[in-house]
Amino acid sequence: MSRHSVRKSSKAGAPPGTLIHIGSQRTDAVKITVFDYTADLVNERECQVEELCNYCNNKTITWINVDGLHNVEILGKIGEQFHLDKLLLEDILNTNHRPKTEIFQNYIFVTLKMVDMNTDRSGITHEQVSFVMGDGWLISFQEEGGDVFDGIRDRIRKLQGEIPKRKVDFLLYRMLDTVVDNYFFVTEYFSDKNAAIERDIFKNPTPEALKEIQTLKRQIVNFKRVVLPLREVASGLEKDGGKLVEESTHRYLRDLYEHIIQVNDSIDSQREVIASIQDLYLSGTSNKMNEVMKVLTVISTIFIPLTFIVGVYGMNFSNMPETEWHYGYYVIWGIMLIILSGMVIYFRRKKWF
Amino acid sequence: MSRHSVRKSSKAGAPPGTLIHIGSQRTDAVKITVFDYTADLVNERECQVEELCNYCNNKTITWINVDGLHNVEILGKIGEQFHLDKLLLEDILNTNHRPKTEIFQNYIFVTLKMVDMNTDRSGITHEQVSFVMGDGWLISFQEEGGDVFDGIRDRIRKLQGEIPKRKVDFLLYRMLDTVVDNYFFVTEYFSDKNAAIERDIFKNPTPEALKEIQTLKRQIVNFKRVVLPLREVASGLEKDGGKLVEESTHRYLRDLYEHIIQVNDSIDSQREVIASIQDLYLSGTSNKMNEVMKVLTVISTIFIPLTFIVGVYGMNFSNMPETEWHYGYYVIWGIMLIILSGMVIYFRRKKWF
Amino acid sequence: MSRHSVRKSSKAGAPPGTLIHIGSQRTDAVKITVFDYTADLVNERECQVEELCNYCNNKTITWINVDGLHNVEILGKIGEQFHLDKLLLEDILNTNHRPKTEIFQNYIFVTLKMVDMNTDRSGITHEQVSFVMGDGWLISFQEEGGDVFDGIRDRIRKLQGEIPKRKVDFLLYRMLDTVVDNYFFVTEYFSDKNAAIERDIFKNPTPEALKEIQTLKRQIVNFKRVVLPLREVASGLEKDGGKLVEESTHRYLRDLYEHIIQVNDSIDSQREVIASIQDLYLSGTSNKMNEVMKVLTVISTIFIPLTFIVGVYGMNFSNMPETEWHYGYYVIWGIMLIILSGMVIYFRRKKWF
Amino acid sequence: MSRHSVRKSSKAGAPPGTLIHIGSQRTDAVKITVFDYTADLVNERECQVEELCNYCNNKTITWINVDGLHNVEILGKIGEQFHLDKLLLEDILNTNHRPKTEIFQNYIFVTLKMVDMNTDRSGITHEQVSFVMGDGWLISFQEEGGDVFDGIRDRIRKLQGEIPKRKVDFLLYRMLDTVVDNYFFVTEYFSDKNAAIERDIFKNPTPEALKEIQTLKRQIVNFKRVVLPLREVASGLEKDGGKLVEESTHRYLRDLYEHIIQVNDSIDSQREVIASIQDLYLSGTSNKMNEVMKVLTVISTIFIPLTFIVGVYGMNFSNMPETEWHYGYYVIWGIMLIILSGMVIYFRRKKWF
Amino acid sequence: MSRHSVRKSSKAGAPPGTLIHIGSQRTDAVKITVFDYTADLVNERECQVEELCNYCNNKTITWINVDGLHNVEILGKIGEQFHLDKLLLEDILNTNHRPKTEIFQNYIFVTLKMVDMNTDRSGITHEQVSFVMGDGWLISFQEEGGDVFDGIRDRIRKLQGEIPKRKVDFLLYRMLDTVVDNYFFVTEYFSDKNAAIERDIFKNPTPEALKEIQTLKRQIVNFKRVVLPLREVASGLEKDGGKLVEESTHRYLRDLYEHIIQVNDSIDSQREVIASIQDLYLSGTSNKMNEVMKVLTVISTIFIPLTFIVGVYGMNFSNMPETEWHYGYYVIWGIMLIILSGMVIYFRRKKWF
Repeated sequence: MSRHSVRKSSKAGAPPGTLIHIGSQRTDAVKITVFDYTADLVNERECQVEELCNYCNNKTITWINVDGLHNVEILGKIGEQFHLDKLLLEDILNTNHRPKTEIFQNYIFVTLKMVDMNTDRSGITHEQVSFVMGDGWLISFQEEGGDVFDGIRDRIRKLQGEIPKRKVDFLLYRMLDTVVDNYFFVTEYFSDKNAAIERDIFKNPTPEALKEIQTLKRQIVNFKRVVLPLREVASGLEKDGGKLVEESTHRYLRDLYEHIIQVNDSIDSQREVIASIQDLYLSGTSNKMNEVMKVLTVISTIFIPLTFIVGVYGMNFSNMPETEWHYGYYVIWGIMLIILSGMVIYFRRKKWF
Repeated sequence: MSRHSVRKSSKAGAPPGTLIHIGSQRTDAVKITVFDYTADLVNERECQVEELCNYCNNKTITWINVDGLHNVEILGKIGEQFHLDKLLLEDILNTNHRPKTEIFQNYIFVTLKMVDMNTDRSGITHEQVSFVMGDGWLISFQEEGGDVFDGIRDRIRKLQGEIPKRKVDFLLYRMLDTVVDNYFFVTEYFSDKNAAIERDIFKNPTPEALKEIQTLKRQIVNFKRVVLPLREVASGLEKDGGKLVEESTHRYLRDLYEHIIQVNDSIDSQREVIASIQDLYLSGTSNKMNEVMKVLTVISTIFIPLTFIVGVYGMNFSNMPETEWHYGYYVIWGIMLIILSGMVIYFRRKKWF
Repeated sequence: MSRHSVRKSSKAGAPPGTLIHIGSQRTDAVKITVFDYTADLVNERECQVEELCNYCNNKTITWINVDGLHNVEILGKIGEQFHLDKLLLEDILNTNHRPKTEIFQNYIFVTLKMVDMNTDRSGITHEQVSFVMGDGWLISFQEEGGDVFDGIRDRIRKLQGEIPKRKVDFLLYRMLDTVVDNYFFVTEYFSDKNAAIERDIFKNPTPEALKEIQTLKRQIVNFKRVVLPLREVASGLEKDGGKLVEESTHRYLRDLYEHIIQVNDSIDSQREVIASIQDLYLSGTSNKMNEVMKVLTVISTIFIPLTFIVGVYGMNFSNMPETEWHYGYYVIWGIMLIILSGMVIYFRRKKWF
Repeated sequence: MSRHSVRKSSKAGAPPGTLIHIGSQRTDAVKITVFDYTADLVNERECQVEELCNYCNNKTITWINVDGLHNVEILGKIGEQFHLDKLLLEDILNTNHRPKTEIFQNYIFVTLKMVDMNTDRSGITHEQVSFVMGDGWLISFQEEGGDVFDGIRDRIRKLQGEIPKRKVDFLLYRMLDTVVDNYFFVTEYFSDKNAAIERDIFKNPTPEALKEIQTLKRQIVNFKRVVLPLREVASGLEKDGGKLVEESTHRYLRDLYEHIIQVNDSIDSQREVIASIQDLYLSGTSNKMNEVMKVLTVISTIFIPLTFIVGVYGMNFSNMPETEWHYGYYVIWGIMLIILSGMVIYFRRKKWF
Repeated sequence: MSRHSVRKSSKAGAPPGTLIHIGSQRTDAVKITVFDYTADLVNERECQVEELCNYCNNKTITWINVDGLHNVEILGKIGEQFHLDKLLLEDILNTNHRPKTEIFQNYIFVTLKMVDMNTDRSGITHEQVSFVMGDGWLISFQEEGGDVFDGIRDRIRKLQGEIPKRKVDFLLYRMLDTVVDNYFFVTEYFSDKNAAIERDIFKNPTPEALKEIQTLKRQIVNFKRVVLPLREVASGLEKDGGKLVEESTHRYLRDLYEHIIQVNDSIDSQREVIASIQDLYLSGTSNKMNEVMKVLTVISTIFIPLTFIVGVYGMNFSNMPETEWHYGYYVIWGIMLIILSGMVIYFRRKKWF
């Protein structure tokens, strides 16, 4: 949790629009990749921040992908070239920002989380990805290299599919859609993990299982926080997108919205499942406890009276007639066996073992 | 649960409108049945997908039932003939889709779940059924053969009742109504199951009963998820149905809406019942535990002091006057009986047994 | 619960408007009573369903009370004479219907539950009562004879009070008001029952008390479900009643609305009370358990060490100096008394008894 | 609780507007006090109900205070003189009425609860106070003598402050404000009580403390019910007060509204506090139980094995070599001391004592 | 809690607008500091309340900071000079007031809490700070000296940044923003504290940890209460600020709003975390209890039967053949070792230790 918690206090008191990168510090260079395409032509290259203005106003569709937010200066230059609002740049750098859509006069700003399943135990990483879309250009900002957009890149390179035929808003839609599609991996992970935990939690409620439950619960809650505001992101684009979002794209955005709802429903469902698994854990624990108690009770209850009886005949009174009887010892054994049997029958009837 | 969980990740990254069937794979042929009727005539036959266009524009009412969604190609052909939106076809194939109504210019799309009680322990199966209704035609898409519409088929064959006399929107209403009517079987099942579990849960709270409670709880939650969005389906048809939904059908749709509310209320009620049964289970468990504890306490508390007394007279001191008394042994028995009686009276008063 | 659960599945698949009575089957005749009155004259008689049309269009106010819904044919005839909607008749017969108001062009339909406290343990019975009010006539449908309207009948017979002076909408208001007034008996019953259960639940939390709590809880939940939709019934009449509801009756309907809110508040209050009683029960149980545990601990902790000591001197070592001492036995008793006192003081200080 | 529960069933079936006093019966006379004032003159006297009409239409501001609602006849006469609605009078008499504002054409009706802290254990009493304000007159109805308005009376008598300078709506505001100000005493009482209970609940969770928690919890819930509807009372006066409420009073009513919100927030806060205290109680109980269990376990676990050992050497076998050893007895003591030390170290490490 | 609870009852009955300071009493002088600046010039000085009117109407921007609310007279004078509403002054003095924005004709009033982390265990202190902003002037009221605005003072003194270039509404925004930025310190504190508590709560659930959980929980709830109403404060300024809030400042206020939402989200997250930590605590407690129980059971169950056996051979019957056997003693030891091993195996298999 703490990794995703708000780490903005280092900025407290700084004036608004001050560009400070919040997130893990990196030292490698910021990488800027440009796709410049029309329905017939595509041009892909890495380039420097100063060259970007060439793409601002041309007739082609330009997708500029920025990998790495740690070099604040470069971001500032991009902002200047595309006339971006200072507070918007601040939002891009604040990698704990809530997903949101903001519609400006000449461009649209979208920020959301891209999820990634990693193989170690922390499970899921969230990386912030922001988009600024203007007339004919789209800039995407990522914290780190490695993303989910390779399918889109392939399609652009081969000029396949609908993307090259449509305007830049469709490219934005496709990228958002790809991000959201990847959320389904996470819900599947939750589902599988839930099933795995549930399998033997009741029979064997170990403290480790409880830890796993708590971890999963928190992951689900965190993921919910990532997904919930997305509904407004999608509906905001459709409703307030203005002239930058084509009429023909609305149907697709509605579809995106439905996918988000579906992810949301699935998370809610997982939440209920994990809550009921925790109930199972608690019931399992108390069940096991009861079992332990019953054994204790059965053993104690059988032997305590018998021990009393043998104690009686261990007393050293000079006058104890029974001890003198020839078969006294056997009689006592007989009595004790009768008591034993009686108790066993009693407990069996009570279904204690 | 996992069976109904979202299984869309296999599609992640595919462009929208790509037709991929999500669900269990089947190999048998897709079966297409056509009912073509007016108030006086009815014509029922199986046919190939290529023949369907004959029915697109004729004056009769045509109900085309498609059994099986696994052959994506056939679905694509249907889409072409009736000019259906690609994303709509995608929704039909995504059998985990949320129930919804979508109003297009020339047709209305409705998707919801058809429930079926099966005899094995998993209880309830949900099958997705989708409807596309245009001017004079209705196509229904089902995942598998076997449905709840036989009553409607009979009535059409015999030209009985209101269906042949009215437009196609009434047929759609009747089919939705039939699906919703079947939900009542499920709520009854919940009600009966609840009653069965409740009967002896408090007296005998076994772990198996808890499992049953958990299963039922989850079934109810899942079913709730199926029913809840239906309210918008029904009200959406009435409010936004446009010219495809006759004024005279509105009253029926309102009635459908009320039935959905009734199912919903009933589910909410079952949820509260199952929650209170779980409370009963927990109370029953702790009650039984207390009973066990009391027996242990009573036995221990009675015999521990007595064992101490007999221990005292088992000591081997050379000078223990009581052991020399002629009636010492009997006196000790007397004392122990008095202590025993005192304790029994004490426990009785405390109502411990 | 199960008695009030939805029992509509027997209708599944039947076309809408099919009149099937849902509820317990009866064989006695349906009884129809008619009050025909103006401000000056009153005429009360039992009559056959065929005679009712005499009252449809006359200038007097006519109240037709129908006792018994099991004869579907009679209901159908009434429907024909008063031109009632088929689905409306279906709603009247479906005795599990949610309370509602529906405004038609020429009449208003209201259905709600009439409560009755019975003397056996099930506590409260709900009977559905439906009203159809047209211009100058009011038909009330009850499942069984015996109702709460005798006060109104008396007042009409004696031409007392406001009813004879006003239009038929006031009669409807008075009948609804009487039904709602009877709800207060139920909230009082809940209140008394709660107080009775609470009195000794903490001191003596028996399993029977828990059963009572569960029963009461469920009764309250069920009653809540009866009352909650009534708010819309009352406000619906006031707002959408149209020309059939006089302006002067609005103030009374607002008053009725407030009474319903008051009942509602009272039920919510009872819910919180019963929930906190259940908390008390659980605390009481665990409290009693603790008491038991303490007794066990005190007795065990005192006697286990003492028993050890007497065990020591029961050993048969040939060389045990203490056993040879003349006062050894008394010294041991002394030591044991000191240990005993020490423990008693320790436990007293810990407030264990 | 039961004291405040709804006691209206005695009215069930009575026609609306029937004046029946609901509440404790009293026999002393109803006391009517009149303040008649302008900015310069004030006239205070007790008077009979018949004289009131003198004050209806004069130019001065008249405050009529009615102490006691048990004489229904007098109330009826007041109603006639000021042309009050019959249902309004019924609301005044129904001392369980929900706080509300109702705007009539010529007057405004406000009813709410006046709280009083009493010294016995029941804590807080609620008394209903109703206001009817017309053009130039204000009637206040109280159940019993003794109220919170003495400060206002003083100020009117001395013609101090704003009240004599303003219209009658300001007097109403000041009275409502005084009632609400007194609510702060109650929230303070809750706060103090919470602090008192919390102080030693965890260390010493007695059943009595639980009773106190339950009582306080219920008082808070009841008080919440008194305060919550007040928000609508205040905002209703401001928004719908019409010409009877001066524009200049609106700012004050907004202030009153904020005070009500503040009381509300404070109650919500107390609710959370009491809930967390109850958690503390439960944790404290289980904590104490664990402590008890640990003592039992430590004592039993130490002495049960030792008792076994001494038992061994209490056996009467003819051939037990150890018993013949000269130092056998001391060796056994040594072994037992070693076992004892080992266990003590084990338990210390486990932090069991 | 009680420190922040409502302490207004001392005012009950006082007329509205009476200036009474609610809060801790202080005796030192009220300190008034004035910053008077334009884009080019800045003038900073302490001054007396009487001199303030010089700044009311000049063309420069004036920020008047008032430290200390305990001198009611001075506040009254400020109110006169700037024509402030009496109820507004009352709100400033009531340091328990809910955060709010109120728009007057000639000025805007904002009140909220400034948080401060202190080093002792109470953790967080809330201090109320109020702002009144008119045309060209801003007055800030603080309870005590020491605030978070030193960064702003520096920037004004050096005429750096945007503040000197913009109107007074930007100064207000910057002050609010600084206050909100400091909230992030608190959420970090919560986050760190949560992590610290969580680390070993499960392994070692001490009562002290529970106390810490309770304290943190309550701090979070209190802080939530401080932050929640701020959303309306920020959006109120943007929407209803009128001509006093420049169009260009709207974007900044929206940014402020988003920061508040972020704090809010973070608090909600901490609430869920602390709740799940409390669950962990309870599970940890019951886990430890189970461990204790198991040890007790294992020890008791092993030794109670063995003790019985040695008791048997401690009996003094004259005829007990086994005791006469030469190897009887060793046979018994053998039997007891077999029983011991059997039990150890049994318990190992049950995973009890």
